[in-house]
Amino acid sequence: MNSFVIKPIGIATSPYKQKFGIPRQSGIIKEAIIEIVLNERFSIHAIRGIEEFEYIWVQYIFHENIQDGWSELVRPPKLGGKIKKGVFATRSSHRPNFIGLSLLKLEKVELINKKIHLFASGADILDQTPIIDIKPYLAHLEAKKVQQTNFSIFKQPLLPVLWNETEKQKIDDLKTIHLIEKSLSQDPRPAYQNIEHRIYVTIISKYEIHFKVYQKKITIEKVREIRL
Amino acid sequence: MNSFVIKPIGIATSPYKQKFGIPRQSGIIKEAIIEIVLNERFSIHAIRGIEEFEYIWVQYIFHENIQDGWSELVRPPKLGGKIKKGVFATRSSHRPNFIGLSLLKLEKVELINKKIHLFASGADILDQTPIIDIKPYLAHLEAKKVQQTNFSIFKQPLLPVLWNETEKQKIDDLKTIHLIEKSLSQDPRPAYQNIEHRIYVTIISKYEIHFKVYQKKITIEKVREIRL
Repeated sequence: MNSFVIKPIGIATSPYKQKFGIPRQSGIIKEAIIEIVLNERFSIHAIRGIEEFEYIWVQYIFHENIQDGWSELVRPPKLGGKIKKGVFATRSSHRPNFIGLSLLKLEKVELINKKIHLFASGADILDQTPIIDIKPYLAHLEAKKVQQTNFSIFKQPLLPVLWNETEKQKIDDLKTIHLIEKSLSQDPRPAYQNIEHRIYVTIISKYEIHFKVYQKKITIEKVREIRL
Repeated sequence: MNSFVIKPIGIATSPYKQKFGIPRQSGIIKEAIIEIVLNERFSIHAIRGIEEFEYIWVQYIFHENIQDGWSELVRPPKLGGKIKKGVFATRSSHRPNFIGLSLLKLEKVELINKKIHLFASGADILDQTPIIDIKPYLAHLEAKKVQQTNFSIFKQPLLPVLWNETEKQKIDDLKTIHLIEKSLSQDPRPAYQNIEHRIYVTIISKYEIHFKVYQKKITIEKVREIRL
């Protein structure tokens, strides 16, 4: 009862290759699709009927945050980064047990070489994240009407994303362009940071993206294809 | 990356003292109130702002099920107990990693002897359950409209609950009487079992309840106060 050992049921492949730039919640960027590959110990029986559900709960470990530890007080970016809240009153990824919970749209299920692959959109999950459970979303119980004004009133405006057109042409498909635009338009910088002219770098899909945030606009300055 | 060690953040006290008789999902029995006591390592900072949320996600371990193991295929009681579904397409409490997820209404927060006590209703949690995380419910993202007909169409009718009046008088408060009635009216028997005249026994709050299910009615035959 003092501790429990959790073994991943699978691993997620995500377009978000580093923490910086990941959407701050699930369901925001519909273009963000992850592929969960379940361990080979699971047969197709383990997911029988899952395709009847439009949404699934994905539980996972914030594995790259464990080394950083956690604090009792955190500054939610949605609240502007100045107000401190208790870790259990936030969805912070630095929390006791480092367990994440995301509500994703189930897009497709495939069996490839006897392994189960689940494709889900609206993801806010880092590449190579260990998945520890998958559950159906029970809308008749879990879609609650609440009078909740705390987080939603701080709805951030989306920033326009401008490209260096030469750089944009390095990306060969429109879906990835949209994913990058949507992800950056959320302004991935820490909420309390506003350094103009600073170049930020993130990796989305197979591209390293160099961008600036200046006068409430995102400008993509450079794109570099990388080998993963 | 092969395994993670999870340490409980607290323990729940619940009126449900044994697995038989627990509501099958959270949010069904509003009268079912649990009290989560956080470990003494957490100060009041850890929950700062939680009272702004009407609902919280409580994650926990189905600790009494670990010894039983789990199967890839389960028979959800909501589907009549005859249809088999994959464990990840159900909320079965026998699942890999034995992690439970319940959406509860936050009723009250108290600091007693420097320990944080959270009271939450709509519980489907066994007494002494180890709690491993608490997160706010984000209604603007997690209340999804879905066309989901799979579980909800099998909505069970509630059975009427009849008392042996002499036995009923052994219970000294109306809240507990309502909790017992509501819990039993869901018909806690395994879905595939219908043995008339059989006496079932469950423990709710401090009472051992002996009941029958006969002609779609619950009859409470005996009440015995126990020392916990």
